[in-house]
Amino acid sequence: MALKKAGVLGATGSVGQRFILLLADHPDFELYALGASPRSAGKKYVDAVKWKQTSLLPESAKDLVVEECKFQGKLAECDVIFSGLDSDVAGEVEKEFCDNGLAVVSNAKNYRRSPDVPLIVPIVNTDHLSIVEKKVADAKKNGEKKGFIVCISNCSTAGLVAPLKPLVDAFGPIDLLTATTLQAISGAGFSPGVSGIDVLDNIVPFISGEEEKIEWETKKILGQVNDDNTGFKLLSDDEIRVSAQCNRIAVSDGHTECISLKFKNEKKPSVEEVKQVLRDYQCEAFKLGCHSAPKNTIHVLEEEDRPQPRLDRDRDNGYGVSVGRIREDPVLDFKMVVLSHNTVIGAAGAGILIAEILKAKNVI
Amino acid sequence: MALKKAGVLGATGSVGQRFILLLADHPDFELYALGASPRSAGKKYVDAVKWKQTSLLPESAKDLVVEECKFQGKLAECDVIFSGLDSDVAGEVEKEFCDNGLAVVSNAKNYRRSPDVPLIVPIVNTDHLSIVEKKVADAKKNGEKKGFIVCISNCSTAGLVAPLKPLVDAFGPIDLLTATTLQAISGAGFSPGVSGIDVLDNIVPFISGEEEKIEWETKKILGQVNDDNTGFKLLSDDEIRVSAQCNRIAVSDGHTECISLKFKNEKKPSVEEVKQVLRDYQCEAFKLGCHSAPKNTIHVLEEEDRPQPRLDRDRDNGYGVSVGRIREDPVLDFKMVVLSHNTVIGAAGAGILIAEILKAKNVI
Amino acid sequence: MALKKAGVLGATGSVGQRFILLLADHPDFELYALGASPRSAGKKYVDAVKWKQTSLLPESAKDLVVEECKFQGKLAECDVIFSGLDSDVAGEVEKEFCDNGLAVVSNAKNYRRSPDVPLIVPIVNTDHLSIVEKKVADAKKNGEKKGFIVCISNCSTAGLVAPLKPLVDAFGPIDLLTATTLQAISGAGFSPGVSGIDVLDNIVPFISGEEEKIEWETKKILGQVNDDNTGFKLLSDDEIRVSAQCNRIAVSDGHTECISLKFKNEKKPSVEEVKQVLRDYQCEAFKLGCHSAPKNTIHVLEEEDRPQPRLDRDRDNGYGVSVGRIREDPVLDFKMVVLSHNTVIGAAGAGILIAEILKAKNVI
Amino acid sequence: MALKKAGVLGATGSVGQRFILLLADHPDFELYALGASPRSAGKKYVDAVKWKQTSLLPESAKDLVVEECKFQGKLAECDVIFSGLDSDVAGEVEKEFCDNGLAVVSNAKNYRRSPDVPLIVPIVNTDHLSIVEKKVADAKKNGEKKGFIVCISNCSTAGLVAPLKPLVDAFGPIDLLTATTLQAISGAGFSPGVSGIDVLDNIVPFISGEEEKIEWETKKILGQVNDDNTGFKLLSDDEIRVSAQCNRIAVSDGHTECISLKFKNEKKPSVEEVKQVLRDYQCEAFKLGCHSAPKNTIHVLEEEDRPQPRLDRDRDNGYGVSVGRIREDPVLDFKMVVLSHNTVIGAAGAGILIAEILKAKNVI
Repeated sequence: MALKKAGVLGATGSVGQRFILLLADHPDFELYALGASPRSAGKKYVDAVKWKQTSLLPESAKDLVVEECKFQGKLAECDVIFSGLDSDVAGEVEKEFCDNGLAVVSNAKNYRRSPDVPLIVPIVNTDHLSIVEKKVADAKKNGEKKGFIVCISNCSTAGLVAPLKPLVDAFGPIDLLTATTLQAISGAGFSPGVSGIDVLDNIVPFISGEEEKIEWETKKILGQVNDDNTGFKLLSDDEIRVSAQCNRIAVSDGHTECISLKFKNEKKPSVEEVKQVLRDYQCEAFKLGCHSAPKNTIHVLEEEDRPQPRLDRDRDNGYGVSVGRIREDPVLDFKMVVLSHNTVIGAAGAGILIAEILKAKNVI
Repeated sequence: MALKKAGVLGATGSVGQRFILLLADHPDFELYALGASPRSAGKKYVDAVKWKQTSLLPESAKDLVVEECKFQGKLAECDVIFSGLDSDVAGEVEKEFCDNGLAVVSNAKNYRRSPDVPLIVPIVNTDHLSIVEKKVADAKKNGEKKGFIVCISNCSTAGLVAPLKPLVDAFGPIDLLTATTLQAISGAGFSPGVSGIDVLDNIVPFISGEEEKIEWETKKILGQVNDDNTGFKLLSDDEIRVSAQCNRIAVSDGHTECISLKFKNEKKPSVEEVKQVLRDYQCEAFKLGCHSAPKNTIHVLEEEDRPQPRLDRDRDNGYGVSVGRIREDPVLDFKMVVLSHNTVIGAAGAGILIAEILKAKNVI
Repeated sequence: MALKKAGVLGATGSVGQRFILLLADHPDFELYALGASPRSAGKKYVDAVKWKQTSLLPESAKDLVVEECKFQGKLAECDVIFSGLDSDVAGEVEKEFCDNGLAVVSNAKNYRRSPDVPLIVPIVNTDHLSIVEKKVADAKKNGEKKGFIVCISNCSTAGLVAPLKPLVDAFGPIDLLTATTLQAISGAGFSPGVSGIDVLDNIVPFISGEEEKIEWETKKILGQVNDDNTGFKLLSDDEIRVSAQCNRIAVSDGHTECISLKFKNEKKPSVEEVKQVLRDYQCEAFKLGCHSAPKNTIHVLEEEDRPQPRLDRDRDNGYGVSVGRIREDPVLDFKMVVLSHNTVIGAAGAGILIAEILKAKNVI
Repeated sequence: MALKKAGVLGATGSVGQRFILLLADHPDFELYALGASPRSAGKKYVDAVKWKQTSLLPESAKDLVVEECKFQGKLAECDVIFSGLDSDVAGEVEKEFCDNGLAVVSNAKNYRRSPDVPLIVPIVNTDHLSIVEKKVADAKKNGEKKGFIVCISNCSTAGLVAPLKPLVDAFGPIDLLTATTLQAISGAGFSPGVSGIDVLDNIVPFISGEEEKIEWETKKILGQVNDDNTGFKLLSDDEIRVSAQCNRIAVSDGHTECISLKFKNEKKPSVEEVKQVLRDYQCEAFKLGCHSAPKNTIHVLEEEDRPQPRLDRDRDNGYGVSVGRIREDPVLDFKMVVLSHNTVIGAAGAGILIAEILKAKNVI
């Protein structure tokens, strides 16, 4: 089957570099075009980038000539655009590609709250993509090509909602939810990213805007598509109350979240039932046979001192989420520790899997 | 005024070393005797210890000859015994000194749950010492000298209860309390202590027994002396529910705790009222003029990204507790971040201040 | 071709765990038997081990029953024994297996200095294996099976000699050699290994015995097999002088070494010639087609700030060595930075590749 | 005695903040004026600065109004100017103050190589200040006030030359000198300073310009004032060859340097003689009674695993240098490990001590 042409915006940044790594040798996509700032445009990628990944710069990317982030040139020929742009420029650029009929999968926060833009954790709420399926299908009937934007969720939201989804499906809605996060520094990029002196023998108990993102995005992701398949019904503050406390710590990759939750139902499940539901959960992406989908969506750990980021973040290539220390909570119903790979399921990796799903659903 | 003779048990360990540092040049105490394992007994301290403090080994300690941890020799002549013993030996040894009429201030966990042993955070519940005051006074009337044990609280409990005490005094009892801790490694000692590979680019989301200690000790410390001044009325599970999640992270000193609480009273105070009560709080030790008592018991920080362990742990030489990010909580009433110095107010330092208070109250 | 039966001694330790990871699904070897302390013997491996690797415990190892480290049971049926034993027990145990005709590849230091035991860095001095080839062949002529021991070098020696070998081959002997190492903590194992408090915001400028190992082992590895193929001619102190300064730092995997060297020849090569020789070097293991042999033995990096352990340690799965900052030295001839993966080419990984080479040479 | 009025340029930066900390409550100086960028000018210091020190912002600094870095206002009234400016602006600004008759003590690199500017490590080459003494005295004879600049050395140079000075005085010139540094991140400031991802589980084996600074500055500092007391005779490449290899590692404060040296004299001293000379060394600043001068300039450590940055960097408030592991070197004569506090003796602290010396010598 012909490979889909993929373009990467913000190609020299940390998210862009990871998109490129994941697209090299991908069975569905061809790394076709790269966009970056005017400073980089016109250069070969190998000359434009300060490559800072643990894997070598893929040969297939080295000689690609970087373009400006505009709907022109090879970028305009792509089937799907992956955007790793900073939020200060993402809004306008992504809109331009969308308006010109392209599928845009974005890591930026700009359109996450837009009423008709799906906010997707690809192991959780792939049903929300029905909105773009409909939009594209309707246009196709008219012989048109309709662009759209799909947003990747915030990294710490992704890990949080992964175990919640099967729990809600099995035991009904969640009433109260608290999450204290211990977040890795890779999520902050590297120009400059988190300063070394801030995380050496230290914690920063604050990440700008992060707590609000967790509290808000959870309500969209756990919400539903509305009846006419054109937008979303978010959970209201009455339906779920969410409280987050976010910390930046000296971990390279992998967000750890100490969470606690209370179900709405009086009759709460047993600890063993909670574990079993998590163990049994298979995400739709896996059922669709997507290349990057995790075989085990949730890894339930029984060791008393797990999950640990260094040891557990790479389960299923970072697409699997680890949950440990599941136990009763004297204040709410259950508490547990959730670990997810912030640059995989929480950023670039999620974007790739979303595109795989879109392809499996014939949307791109 | 004559200095009180002080002995240190477990003198070569990490807690013992800190007792020694704090006792050197202390205005109330003379470092008089040292106890350690039979392997060290008979040696000069300088030859027995692998000194691992950032301050140099005090001259006054170097030539002290280490004794076995028994009620004999110079240890038997002490006015107060500071115990940094491990729990596997502390039980018997501390009892021997107590039974022989000595005042024992212990960092071990063995007697924390004993009905007539005060469990003290010296900036919080010094009123609990009335039990030993009475015991000693009653004996004195009969011309006797009565020994006793006072326990230092667990390190993470100390930081947690510091802001709770003035809040309870001002706004009434707390109904629900959650604490997710990010704990320093110094608390685990250094033979071997926390393994480097466990905290490098990693978190261990588990500390053996720690969550139980926080949940139980809080109920004793926030409880009251009973009517006849011989024991304690702990808060019951109905009076307060406490839930802790403990993590070990790559910080040398200083426990950070993300806490959340709900008052029993329907009418909850404003954020500003909470801050004001914390700012105004003066611990009894300060009012008594104790040498080590913090001038500001609680430092209320207004910067959005504080407290941070590296920057804030040494306030008032580690005896002051920092509280920041005080804000309303969508799930409980308020959330905030508490930072305390685990080896000062949470261990050896607390022991010294407790002894200063006992001296100020003429108990030793 | 039939798989060779492999046994692992010290199977629950850090080196043993890595042997097991590397042997699972190996094309040459079958993980056949496991030896550990009497405490573990009789248990299934999954129950005996505290698994602390980033990859999951291989299914093929889980149900293997651990045996004592003696020449009996399944261990006695092995074609090759990989020893990750501590040096306090390795001497006797390895000798027993060797005396009973087995091939032993050992990570312990006990036999490294034995006159007839090859000390091997498998990307460097595979010609030294001729001694065991001869020993085994001679015995075979007599219808006997002769055991032998091959020692893996010290981890920091491995990285150091990797670039030296091709340089000596091209430009003649080295007169003076200095190496200041910045060593990872994984090399120290994890019971207890390096204490966290020793490497958090800290360096320990000392590793017991390490400098002596580097200074001595280099002379054996860069030396030659003697004329009758029964032992080794070490370089003498007149032939090469080596000086090492070793530091333990907060890196998980990957030893960085700042080295400087002076050739004996007056006419020294250019920097570019040095680089070219390193780039061109192909180890014998690669030419033999060994499964784990690095495609590029030496990666010459041109970026001014490389190699870096986190980014470069995994080249060729850790079997490739990275060399950067090659430049003239005002004091000796050249200085450069060498990075090698201490648990791969410097420990368990080296053992596996040595065994692959032995198999390729029909010694096992 | 009247306090000298002190001004700080670059007052909001990391070096400036440390100048301010050290000047608060200083017995010789009054913190009188603050200069920073136009963005900060006109604001109270407490409002202009993002304070990131472990000590609280001194009360005496809070309400000082920040000025632009020009010879005007209160800055023009100072007796001494401490410059923590970045090198891109330091050149012009410092010259303006100097040309207007002020004493400038600068941490910037701009004038370090100027022929008549002393480059001072205040525990090493205070005799080099004779040049400004003469300049000022000559002007005074003419009733004039002559400005001058004194440069603080590079941080890693400071630690290196500290033990060299007494060794050269005792045993004659050094022929060869190598230094491999493991440098703390505080030296790089904090906007942005060293990125966290660069030092977490990592080393960066390169610091821009650092090796050249060490190799060049050592020759000026160990050189001499010329005969007419107007400039310096640097050591030539024939007199000493210096080679440095610099690494950035995960330490907050304290540069560790593994050094090796060879004396010119054939007859080299014993290890014990080297130690004794270092132990006996007293810097001139101490003899002059300067407030910040270290009581022990060099701390010679006998423990095999010291100095360590976390444990030893604060000797004599960071003005004392620790030297350990002094031993013979198979390649040069001696090797040893030197630890110095980079922000004290290697930056702001050195500036304060230099000013104290200038005052003691009646130059300011």
